[in-house]
Amino acid sequence: MESFTAFLEKRVTQVDSLLCIGLDPHRGDLTEFSAQAAGAFCTRLIEATADIAAAYKPNAAFFEALGPEGIVALQSVIAAVPDGIPVLLDAKRGDIASTAEAYADAVYRVLGADAVTLSPYLGRDSIEPFIADPKQGVFLLCKTSNPGASDLQDLEVIDSSGTAPQRLYEHIATLAQTWNAHHNLGLVVGATQVESLDNVRAAAPDLWFLTPGIGAQGGDLRAALRAGLRADGLGMLIPVSRAIARADDPRETALALRSQINMEREEIMASKESPGSASALTGDQSQLADALLDAGCIQFGNFTLRSGLESPIYIDLRRLASYPKLLSQA
Amino acid sequence: MESFTAFLEKRVTQVDSLLCIGLDPHRGDLTEFSAQAAGAFCTRLIEATADIAAAYKPNAAFFEALGPEGIVALQSVIAAVPDGIPVLLDAKRGDIASTAEAYADAVYRVLGADAVTLSPYLGRDSIEPFIADPKQGVFLLCKTSNPGASDLQDLEVIDSSGTAPQRLYEHIATLAQTWNAHHNLGLVVGATQVESLDNVRAAAPDLWFLTPGIGAQGGDLRAALRAGLRADGLGMLIPVSRAIARADDPRETALALRSQINMEREEIMASKESPGSASALTGDQSQLADALLDAGCIQFGNFTLRSGLESPIYIDLRRLASYPKLLSQA
Repeated sequence: MESFTAFLEKRVTQVDSLLCIGLDPHRGDLTEFSAQAAGAFCTRLIEATADIAAAYKPNAAFFEALGPEGIVALQSVIAAVPDGIPVLLDAKRGDIASTAEAYADAVYRVLGADAVTLSPYLGRDSIEPFIADPKQGVFLLCKTSNPGASDLQDLEVIDSSGTAPQRLYEHIATLAQTWNAHHNLGLVVGATQVESLDNVRAAAPDLWFLTPGIGAQGGDLRAALRAGLRADGLGMLIPVSRAIARADDPRETALALRSQINMEREEIMASKESPGSASALTGDQSQLADALLDAGCIQFGNFTLRSGLESPIYIDLRRLASYPKLLSQA
Repeated sequence: MESFTAFLEKRVTQVDSLLCIGLDPHRGDLTEFSAQAAGAFCTRLIEATADIAAAYKPNAAFFEALGPEGIVALQSVIAAVPDGIPVLLDAKRGDIASTAEAYADAVYRVLGADAVTLSPYLGRDSIEPFIADPKQGVFLLCKTSNPGASDLQDLEVIDSSGTAPQRLYEHIATLAQTWNAHHNLGLVVGATQVESLDNVRAAAPDLWFLTPGIGAQGGDLRAALRAGLRADGLGMLIPVSRAIARADDPRETALALRSQINMEREEIMASKESPGSASALTGDQSQLADALLDAGCIQFGNFTLRSGLESPIYIDLRRLASYPKLLSQA
């Protein structure tokens, strides 16, 4: 059976996109405060971006605020997403036992979503009913960018297993990595704190991240991608809501965002493939490295070093004598 | 303006009850899986117990699993609760900014609940929109009794302020106590782990607890009340769902539960008032104390002891000689 992750990756590859389009019918964005207007707002976005979106993410809250008719609208919006595009319901549920089963039933069967965001506070058994079926997915809250995130998420925790202290959010990432037996569990990790993204990727090398905060919240796209992308250049969904929904031309904006994401991604992957990852270099160091390369001090190929070891890289600083400017730079 | 806590305490005092009746239309408890059956199931419970219930607690999940009609049913059920009885929506929401505002709008305005359960993972700003109005209340997840609770809640955390390590759930209790400026914030603390209840009460002496786990989950009522009651004998709501809903006579069962809770509560308060708290006594010690009282060895009143001190209690063990059985017990 195809796992949720496989389903998502198929779509991402098919449309070469990490863009997850948020369907957030904010009251202020609607022509009138009605379920009909909310539905129209979302289906217009879906129609404009169905060949660009890696996934759609309707936000349950804005539909619930519209009462029973809002739930009808949410069902219609999810049904309007073409087959083959994952729908992530942003609902941040979290409960146990038969209650968790009822929520899972509501999310997957009643609403027809493929995945859902959950809160981790109640622990593993609160997640299980949502990931028991591999084709259904979960994005677990891990690290968010709001001011209150530090109240819990940044606390240092001491595991009873006696491992070194971790931040709570890192602990959750570590747990989630081990709970992903069905290949359908991901994490919500905000884009604005790059160091945290780095830490979460280290703790959960395999998982997909849902990474809000690019656009409206002002997160740096390149820095976020560099920290969060998996080794295979996948593993991150970039949800964008208002920046697309409120644009004069949502389609053009979505196309531009996809291109920008892909450009950054290609550059990052290229720098990762070349030896001595440029990601660890500052601007000055990077310039120096380029100059050393230009001067022929650094060569790539197959070399046998004096030590007898084989190396794909050969550094010959004797050539530096011919480049006095480089010496002063170093 | 009357705060949610004042509203709740007025009701608790009026009907002399800590019983919070859960409205959980489990699929298996319904004559058919329909919103109508769910509504009927709940209104029948409300009618049977409206003069006994301190509060009602509908569980959002079971209504959401019934689709838009389920939300209509939930609205009707909440509307069927007589004025003056608080309705706590068990929804365990948790989101930030405009999303949190939309959820608060859905809970309070659309559904008409007086209070809601929330998850604390996103921190203070995720709670604010729900407690901004003092007459609306929140019960924040703190310590639950499920197996996965230990994944996060029991972790030892080190606060950046450098205080001694606490469990995460104690940290939340400490925070909640400081966030209760409007007198409308409480905590969800399971009944089955009495030590945890004790710790939470120490960290949050003023707050109301919603304490599930009596009945179906087998928590010890007396031990839970002893650990969780505030100094004024209030501060705990005991939610009971299946034990009442599935009883042959829900009303009789609710009456019996209220009596049992009140009996235990009175005993606990009495023992707290009398010097040398009986709470430290084991069952055997308690029997012995009662027997000593019966034998006249212990008298209450105003006594001047040989030391010259005044005492409200006088112990005369010389009378023991007439009660050889008591001597062998001691």
